[in-house]
Amino acid sequence: MGTQVEQYELTHPGDEAVELTAVLSALAEPARLTIVHTVADYGSEGGMACLDVWEKSGLTATKSTMSHHYKVLREAGLVVMWWVGAKKHVRLRRELMDVRWPGLLDAVLADSSVPRAQQKQ
Amino acid sequence: MGTQVEQYELTHPGDEAVELTAVLSALAEPARLTIVHTVADYGSEGGMACLDVWEKSGLTATKSTMSHHYKVLREAGLVVMWWVGAKKHVRLRRELMDVRWPGLLDAVLADSSVPRAQQKQ
Repeated sequence: MGTQVEQYELTHPGDEAVELTAVLSALAEPARLTIVHTVADYGSEGGMACLDVWEKSGLTATKSTMSHHYKVLREAGLVVMWWVGAKKHVRLRRELMDVRWPGLLDAVLADSSVPRAQQKQ
Repeated sequence: MGTQVEQYELTHPGDEAVELTAVLSALAEPARLTIVHTVADYGSEGGMACLDVWEKSGLTATKSTMSHHYKVLREAGLVVMWWVGAKKHVRLRRELMDVRWPGLLDAVLADSSVPRAQQKQ
């Protein structure tokens, strides 16, 4: 039977509905920038588990704070998320970003001052 | 003699103090994007009067709302502002942006969906 997990629906805006101001606003937060960096660095085409993002990123935010950050990124159109069993997975909507705002995500990801080194010691 | 105008001090962060999240946050608002577009399109090396930005942009925001937007842009490090007589002037800190985050401002300015057409009829 397995564990019962509440798998709420993960909704996403269509390509046309994604707006620059929402994308910029979603990126304008250190933890969310760290998430985007981590998914860009470690995620394959098939995305990665959010639990792995948390471990790789060194972020120490709580589960509910992380869920909020993913919701903001997802609703802004920056990421696609889906369930694999009980685990949420995530990948960047890089092809959309690169078509709509060429160079934007690359410019943001090239920034080395993003606090990726909030390592758990 | 002349008219007495309150010329409050226009402070700016030093180059090193300018942060990506503040820049992204400042840009994540339609009217501020419009201001940045307008200054990029019409401002010379010597900048332009904020009154001219208002006229060229077609923005209909009140003076106090515009002042707030300029304050956010200035404190984020996106613009330099100074007084010429009773008029505030503004220019982009483009050289700083282009050194710190190459391609970022270009990617944002290339977006044609920015609501620049809020023309006063």
